[in-house]
Amino acid sequence: MTQVRNKATTKARPAAFSTVSPLAPKSFAHLPPLAGVRLASGEAGIRYKNRTDVVLAVFAPGTQVAGVFTKSKTASAPVDWCKANLKDGSARALVMNSGNANAFTGKAGLEGARAVAQSAAGSVGCRASEVFLASTGVIGEPLPAEKITKVLGTLAQDMSSSGWRAAAEAIMTTDTFPKLATASASIDGGKVTINGIAKGSGMIAPDMATMLAFVVTDANLPAAVLQELLADGVKGSFNAITVDSDTSTSDTLLLFATGKGGAHPAIAKAADKRLANFRTRLDGVLLDLALQVVRDGEGARKLIRIDVTGAENDTAAKRIALSIANSPLMKTAIAGSDANWGRVVMAVGKAGEKAERDRLTIRFGSQLVAEKGGRAANYDEAAATKAVSGREVDIAVDLALGKGAARVWTCDLTHGYIDINGSYRS
Amino acid sequence: MTQVRNKATTKARPAAFSTVSPLAPKSFAHLPPLAGVRLASGEAGIRYKNRTDVVLAVFAPGTQVAGVFTKSKTASAPVDWCKANLKDGSARALVMNSGNANAFTGKAGLEGARAVAQSAAGSVGCRASEVFLASTGVIGEPLPAEKITKVLGTLAQDMSSSGWRAAAEAIMTTDTFPKLATASASIDGGKVTINGIAKGSGMIAPDMATMLAFVVTDANLPAAVLQELLADGVKGSFNAITVDSDTSTSDTLLLFATGKGGAHPAIAKAADKRLANFRTRLDGVLLDLALQVVRDGEGARKLIRIDVTGAENDTAAKRIALSIANSPLMKTAIAGSDANWGRVVMAVGKAGEKAERDRLTIRFGSQLVAEKGGRAANYDEAAATKAVSGREVDIAVDLALGKGAARVWTCDLTHGYIDINGSYRS
Repeated sequence: MTQVRNKATTKARPAAFSTVSPLAPKSFAHLPPLAGVRLASGEAGIRYKNRTDVVLAVFAPGTQVAGVFTKSKTASAPVDWCKANLKDGSARALVMNSGNANAFTGKAGLEGARAVAQSAAGSVGCRASEVFLASTGVIGEPLPAEKITKVLGTLAQDMSSSGWRAAAEAIMTTDTFPKLATASASIDGGKVTINGIAKGSGMIAPDMATMLAFVVTDANLPAAVLQELLADGVKGSFNAITVDSDTSTSDTLLLFATGKGGAHPAIAKAADKRLANFRTRLDGVLLDLALQVVRDGEGARKLIRIDVTGAENDTAAKRIALSIANSPLMKTAIAGSDANWGRVVMAVGKAGEKAERDRLTIRFGSQLVAEKGGRAANYDEAAATKAVSGREVDIAVDLALGKGAARVWTCDLTHGYIDINGSYRS
Repeated sequence: MTQVRNKATTKARPAAFSTVSPLAPKSFAHLPPLAGVRLASGEAGIRYKNRTDVVLAVFAPGTQVAGVFTKSKTASAPVDWCKANLKDGSARALVMNSGNANAFTGKAGLEGARAVAQSAAGSVGCRASEVFLASTGVIGEPLPAEKITKVLGTLAQDMSSSGWRAAAEAIMTTDTFPKLATASASIDGGKVTINGIAKGSGMIAPDMATMLAFVVTDANLPAAVLQELLADGVKGSFNAITVDSDTSTSDTLLLFATGKGGAHPAIAKAADKRLANFRTRLDGVLLDLALQVVRDGEGARKLIRIDVTGAENDTAAKRIALSIANSPLMKTAIAGSDANWGRVVMAVGKAGEKAERDRLTIRFGSQLVAEKGGRAANYDEAAATKAVSGREVDIAVDLALGKGAARVWTCDLTHGYIDINGSYRS
């Protein structure tokens, strides 16, 4: 029996990881209906029992699409499929599943992807090349494609414009909460909406920094413009977060534009000034979703923001920021509310970028902890400890060498990460 | 009261981390006296109470020295000191301490290093530039140099040729066992000995991959030859291990040659064939010490050896091997005895080096688990699980692209790592 769910469920996550992250948003965003897209979620029983694991989204004819993907050299079959079909720029459907990543599954993996796309195309009435795919879950297990194709027909009969949260829940794996974001924007007076969902918790590192994210707008924008907006937008969001420095084989971020929202003039270039508001709102949705991924980092108890300024250039700043963000010693110190700024010094030093000991300053929150090549003159252990004891910790490093700056986010490294990842497959 | 200890003590490590690693050697190497070097260890009370924390080693006149150091851009004051004084090639003394790394301590740090060197020089009767220094412990705390200088005079009065194990214990921090290795070698008929000690447990990543190691031979070799032998020897040992991908500010490996062992002809070049046996034995001592560091990796329960073959070249192989070795997801899976080879695929993919999904093979021990772009045809879950369930786990990846090969070692990532590093300073 295929059970279609378009309403939020409480069974979305595996029971083993049932504690919701303490960093979860207080309430989930309510995503309004968006002209030109309908969704349905269902139970295919791919891996999990008694929960949804498949999402079908259907788009109005004329919908344009853009995407960015993992840079892994062992990318999944759905990633290969999407990249191959993105050139055309048009999309009619999206199928997402959890429980199996269809990664490192050889020729059978590609055949499974094609079978799912063909099945969806049949139900929707489009070409298979207009169906986009995203899979998340265990790597290396053969995809049971028939379990998915078996439910697609039923899902296609039960599409809803309000299925966003159910969709966000269906793609969860070790996630402890569904990730949703929405914004409205104006393009030269035309009112449009942007809705996005994402999943991701572990195996999170740029570039890209999530397993799956799926953003839809009812604006009327060509694929080339969408692609440029997306490429710009990920720099400060999905490419600026890391949970564990491990890059997924499956990272997929797709942006669809149905063109069915408020009327606005045709826009041919991403640089068009009439897109300024839309760009800002899109960037906001991307950052919102990306930060929800970090807030749900496996075992996370603290959200850590790292600002690096004064580097030789922005690239150097980003590398130093990520060196700090990915340091297990920094992350465990923050987990223990230990103001161990020496480990920040260590992580700056190992980044390989220019740094001068005597110019470097380090702040935990507003507390200056290191300057002039040593501990700050007014160092206050109690204040420094307080600055790393809350749910959100800000670390700022200034190199005083140039104008390069970068901001990245990560979470702490706790026993929860070990618990979750020592037995993920069992 | 300064208490000099030249015998093994059971109090060498902080009580908090009192469980010896299950990967520790069954017995510790006994290091014989070595002509031209004498040692003493004592209690300076730098950080720890009721244990030794300072070592003084004194070398015969004419002793030559070589060294390799951390590549950190925020290297410690002792590292700067050693590098500056290495050019001369001659050494008369070495002072090592635990409890304080004298790193990121600004001008005061350099002054502290100089004060210790001058004090030792006074006690030994040599120039300060002939005194080498190595410090390990917390980063960023001012070095209490006077605590060290206060005990050096007493230590200089009580040197012994049998103080090796006591020295190895005095430099422990989060180490759970002292690290010692010895070998004898022959140079054109002249019998010589090589003794080495090391410390290191966390903040271990190439290059260099230990906090401190100190190797002495009584062979008669000039500094330039020692330097070349050492640079070659670290490639497959200290530069092929990683515990947590974090590179220390203090990594120091010094090689001293006293020239007081069995007589042998003068050797002017490292490539001299008469050095073949010595080189092999030296490499063995370096590898032995390096593996002891991994075996004492913070929280380690398993030693993991990773072999990568068939890469485009050796550099690519090493990068892929380290990508696997540093993956938190791989390390937690092995900790949980989970044969999750998909995470090895992920780590190969994120390394950024050429890899072809359909050519890649992965083995856990003798078990072939992945081939031809998917799970191996004869995959046996029970056998694969068994292969990752013991104290020593071998992972072999063949890329079938070229002749590049590399071998690295790491350990699993466990709750112990979090316990140790969440409260190191407290």
